[in-house]
Amino acid sequence: MNYIKAFAPATVANVACGFDIFGFAVDEPGDVVEIYRRDEPGIVIADITGDEGRLPRDPLRNAVTVVMLRLLDHLKIFDFGCEVILHKNMPLGSGMGSSAASAVAGIFALNELLGQPLTRQQLLPFAMEGERIACGSAHADNVGPSLMGGFLVIRSYQPLDVFRITVPENLYCTLVNPDIEVNTKDARFILRNEVSLKNAISQMGNVAGLIAGLMQEDYDLISRSMVDVIVEPIRAILIPEFNEVKQAAIAQGALGCSISGAGPSMFTLSKGRETAERVGKAMQQKFAEAEIDSKIYVSAINRDGPRVLATA
Amino acid sequence: MNYIKAFAPATVANVACGFDIFGFAVDEPGDVVEIYRRDEPGIVIADITGDEGRLPRDPLRNAVTVVMLRLLDHLKIFDFGCEVILHKNMPLGSGMGSSAASAVAGIFALNELLGQPLTRQQLLPFAMEGERIACGSAHADNVGPSLMGGFLVIRSYQPLDVFRITVPENLYCTLVNPDIEVNTKDARFILRNEVSLKNAISQMGNVAGLIAGLMQEDYDLISRSMVDVIVEPIRAILIPEFNEVKQAAIAQGALGCSISGAGPSMFTLSKGRETAERVGKAMQQKFAEAEIDSKIYVSAINRDGPRVLATA
Repeated sequence: MNYIKAFAPATVANVACGFDIFGFAVDEPGDVVEIYRRDEPGIVIADITGDEGRLPRDPLRNAVTVVMLRLLDHLKIFDFGCEVILHKNMPLGSGMGSSAASAVAGIFALNELLGQPLTRQQLLPFAMEGERIACGSAHADNVGPSLMGGFLVIRSYQPLDVFRITVPENLYCTLVNPDIEVNTKDARFILRNEVSLKNAISQMGNVAGLIAGLMQEDYDLISRSMVDVIVEPIRAILIPEFNEVKQAAIAQGALGCSISGAGPSMFTLSKGRETAERVGKAMQQKFAEAEIDSKIYVSAINRDGPRVLATA
Repeated sequence: MNYIKAFAPATVANVACGFDIFGFAVDEPGDVVEIYRRDEPGIVIADITGDEGRLPRDPLRNAVTVVMLRLLDHLKIFDFGCEVILHKNMPLGSGMGSSAASAVAGIFALNELLGQPLTRQQLLPFAMEGERIACGSAHADNVGPSLMGGFLVIRSYQPLDVFRITVPENLYCTLVNPDIEVNTKDARFILRNEVSLKNAISQMGNVAGLIAGLMQEDYDLISRSMVDVIVEPIRAILIPEFNEVKQAAIAQGALGCSISGAGPSMFTLSKGRETAERVGKAMQQKFAEAEIDSKIYVSAINRDGPRVLATA
């Protein structure tokens, strides 16, 4: 195989109550990486589309190529050479796991090209290194679900312990990305280092409820559990019209609505595609009333993670 | 029906990571209440066995009869009269839901005697009032599982929202009750009102892991998730030999070991009765080495809650 083109999905991290521990993948948007083998050793970034020139072209500073270099280093492959093209299909700093989707597409594609020397679970620590490059810390709540697909729980970071849970087939996600930017580092910086025991207990109850609701296909329990008393009240101030948009989503039948990752994108879960689409339009309309453009993505939960689009 | 005798099970609240939100019922020990109808209106406590004279005989101050009076009041039954005998089969202040088992046995028995005017779920708020009498606050993590059976999650108190999750059939609990006493109010008083965000996240990960592990029958995930970084490190200082006893339990194959409720009883979960019994003996031995007597109770998770033992 001398060429591969692969897709990796965007992701919703935190999922209301599960700050730093929950994430799920969506069917769209997602980033695409193309890798062309070449004879000369070394990785070159031949092109990046869709980033408006904002991502580094230096392979030692771009998350996609950094994770590929780490994998090659781990496998002790020193003579591999390739050209990489990255197609960004979602905005940077959107809260939809943009850097994670790129890094996962890259490492997944390379692993396929090399004949799958590692399992997906084994690729996870490498993909996390891409997050360190892009966001300053090696979080797994975007790269995890982008790489593994489905709804992922990061039980622990030390040691790294992740597991997937089943979700209802008819569960749909609406992502609404307003045309404003929030820096992930800022979004983390404004959080308090301490939470009240009362709020921690409340959050734990919702974490338990969301897991059980998803596994038991209990939409009502899912809805009651999509409550975040720790992070959303603080981060929501970074998103204009947050409360109005959330209320519009709930009014149209969304099970719940919160911030996707560090924002500014907002996500909802709904029962059925039709509701999810109606919810998205209502959210977009609320943003529009405040003269904020936004994009809507409606999709089922992605169950498969990254996929090969073409090989040669 | 003029007579009823009913049993309600002891319970393990908190279950390591689930402070104030998790609880499960065990097959033994449990308390027994007998109710004899009489013609004269009003509730009389005829006898209490097994409490060494420590529980109030005044029906307005004893949790068992208080919850019965509340139920009668709610049902607008003003001419009901009975004599109540309470058989305490576990020590007071043991951390095994002693007051909850008594209150649940009482309200369940009365509801049966009256022809089941309320469902078990509807009885829960009344049983919680018994906890207010006995412990100072209307907690549900003991009365809930004692009344409903199984493994219960209290997602929220306002509004009250509880749900049951399935647990593996071969899951056994070992309860070890050392002959020392911890006051529940003291055990709550020493907790901090704030927790670090880092610890809250860690606890949330374990809450998610324990729920998923129990529902998926993943014993290894159950074991990895039975970690409490918030409450156990503080309350363990009230229990002599806590760390030694816990280590002895783990060494004998327990999936995990923590404090039952507010202590001083300790509990473990194990795969299979044989392991659970071996674990109990090792724990008792460790307490014995420190010259502390203890009682062991090994049982499956009680799935049915209270039950009628006799009627006439």
